[in-house]
Amino acid sequence: MVNVTVGIDIGGTNTVFGFIDESGNCLFEDRISTGDYEKPEAFVIAISKRIKSAAESNFFNLTGIGIGAPNANYYSGAIEDAPNLQWKGRIYISDLFRKHFDVLVALTNDANAAALGEMIYGAAKGMKDFIVITLGTGLGSGIVSNGKLVYGHDGHAGELGHTIVDHDGRLCGCGRKGCLETYASATGIVTTVIQMLEGSDRPSVLADINESEISSELIYKAAEKGDEIALAAFEYTGKILGRKLADTIALTSPEAIFLYGGLANAGKYIFAPTQYHIEKNLLNVFRNKVRLLQSGLIDRNAAVLGAAAIAVSMTDNLGS
Amino acid sequence: MVNVTVGIDIGGTNTVFGFIDESGNCLFEDRISTGDYEKPEAFVIAISKRIKSAAESNFFNLTGIGIGAPNANYYSGAIEDAPNLQWKGRIYISDLFRKHFDVLVALTNDANAAALGEMIYGAAKGMKDFIVITLGTGLGSGIVSNGKLVYGHDGHAGELGHTIVDHDGRLCGCGRKGCLETYASATGIVTTVIQMLEGSDRPSVLADINESEISSELIYKAAEKGDEIALAAFEYTGKILGRKLADTIALTSPEAIFLYGGLANAGKYIFAPTQYHIEKNLLNVFRNKVRLLQSGLIDRNAAVLGAAAIAVSMTDNLGS
Repeated sequence: MVNVTVGIDIGGTNTVFGFIDESGNCLFEDRISTGDYEKPEAFVIAISKRIKSAAESNFFNLTGIGIGAPNANYYSGAIEDAPNLQWKGRIYISDLFRKHFDVLVALTNDANAAALGEMIYGAAKGMKDFIVITLGTGLGSGIVSNGKLVYGHDGHAGELGHTIVDHDGRLCGCGRKGCLETYASATGIVTTVIQMLEGSDRPSVLADINESEISSELIYKAAEKGDEIALAAFEYTGKILGRKLADTIALTSPEAIFLYGGLANAGKYIFAPTQYHIEKNLLNVFRNKVRLLQSGLIDRNAAVLGAAAIAVSMTDNLGS
Repeated sequence: MVNVTVGIDIGGTNTVFGFIDESGNCLFEDRISTGDYEKPEAFVIAISKRIKSAAESNFFNLTGIGIGAPNANYYSGAIEDAPNLQWKGRIYISDLFRKHFDVLVALTNDANAAALGEMIYGAAKGMKDFIVITLGTGLGSGIVSNGKLVYGHDGHAGELGHTIVDHDGRLCGCGRKGCLETYASATGIVTTVIQMLEGSDRPSVLADINESEISSELIYKAAEKGDEIALAAFEYTGKILGRKLADTIALTSPEAIFLYGGLANAGKYIFAPTQYHIEKNLLNVFRNKVRLLQSGLIDRNAAVLGAAAIAVSMTDNLGS
């Protein structure tokens, strides 16, 4: 029998689950379609069967189950009104899993899972103070301080994506204006490009693409060809992100900030301007010592590792 | 013999020290003039003699020494280039005290001391996630998360006063522009009033006062008389502070935020607009649950209690 932790990453379309051994290797991974299950109970029954069957045939001894999900609350163990899931209201997903498994079950949101994954399996091993920023459709953040994830009083800490850049700025999905994630995310940079194309007569390969089809990947490809609009959009995104990260550093003084997710894969195009504007806006005492790094989980089963890390981090806490 | 912790609050003019019993009572307090000592070594010798003599005659058993000082670093035990002290460079003040005492000696900055004081002796007892904001000449902050003060990687965390409100804003003592403390502090509100008086023909009792003599106390007194400029200045200060606190709540999700120090004594004039603009700018999930509170150390030996709390918190850590 091999001791493994199950990591479950619940997404709007698919849910991926995997078995992680004590060295952080993913021994087996599979997925089911989240959208197929109208009720969360049926979803949990289906995935639990699959997990048990895979564990049995592979001689896995389950030591814990960690779940990463959008709008998930660590304290309540519930997914709360997740806009990208078809299950509405408050879903006590941890409790549902506990009906099927007699091991520790822990839940947190995607960005917190990414931070724990980075700490336990990634590039933040041994660090006690760092931040992980996920740059996907939105902007998520997981803050680790004194070696512990900052959940805050209610489990909702880490909403850097919803700090305000401009009180008269872009409309956010949260109903307010000017949130950071409307600028610094895969979606945000697309908006930036569209606005730049409207207000500019500079030639750009992006001008020939239907607005609804512009993506952060296409902007990246354009930047690689030296496209001025694409490069300006990355610079603008990095400026806004860098300024906010400088403010965040002033509060929690991390050793490193990791960028993770779609937009982080744009490499130097996003890292260089972000790094520049972090340094430009830092208080003297913080300058030239906070590292801006690529996540160490890129090209690995990052979401599943992150989810598994939630359970592992709790087991560690219980043992200390 | 009574077990006591010594709290030492080092200020530019005076240094206050006191003996705090296990219930948080200050049994004895005294002060020496910081400015009298050209060298920190001579200062530490003088204050150590006074502490030993007071301890002996009062039958105090010293269990630890906590020191609060400007620009103090918890990790290094040094005061680093404090603009308000006459000792320049890096002063390893903890080490200097250790030459005279065989007990735990710990150092941190004023705002962190205020947060620890609030947690151990004040209104944050039992809270694990809260923030203390000190509104004096500048704006300091101490962030507590998971029951621990957030020092960050280098001991410099908690510089909310140096997050940026406006990149083209007021010149800050740190050399940058638009830092929060240039707006939300006793000094900041004075600048606001002066600017408002220049740009307005509204009658104000403050218009008759020489600019260099306007203080936050006089602005408070004017507000009490219904002075429009004074009230507008408090509203403006609360708006800027409230917005930044809303962003800070999104990051660390505290149970409460405590205001402390000179400007916090203005009561409703600063609390009401700050509270209003916090709520107005909060992400939905945080609304109506973060309490904005007056420090529980007001009218007590707050600075000395805060300093003592540093040593007590470390003893607690060692014991856990």
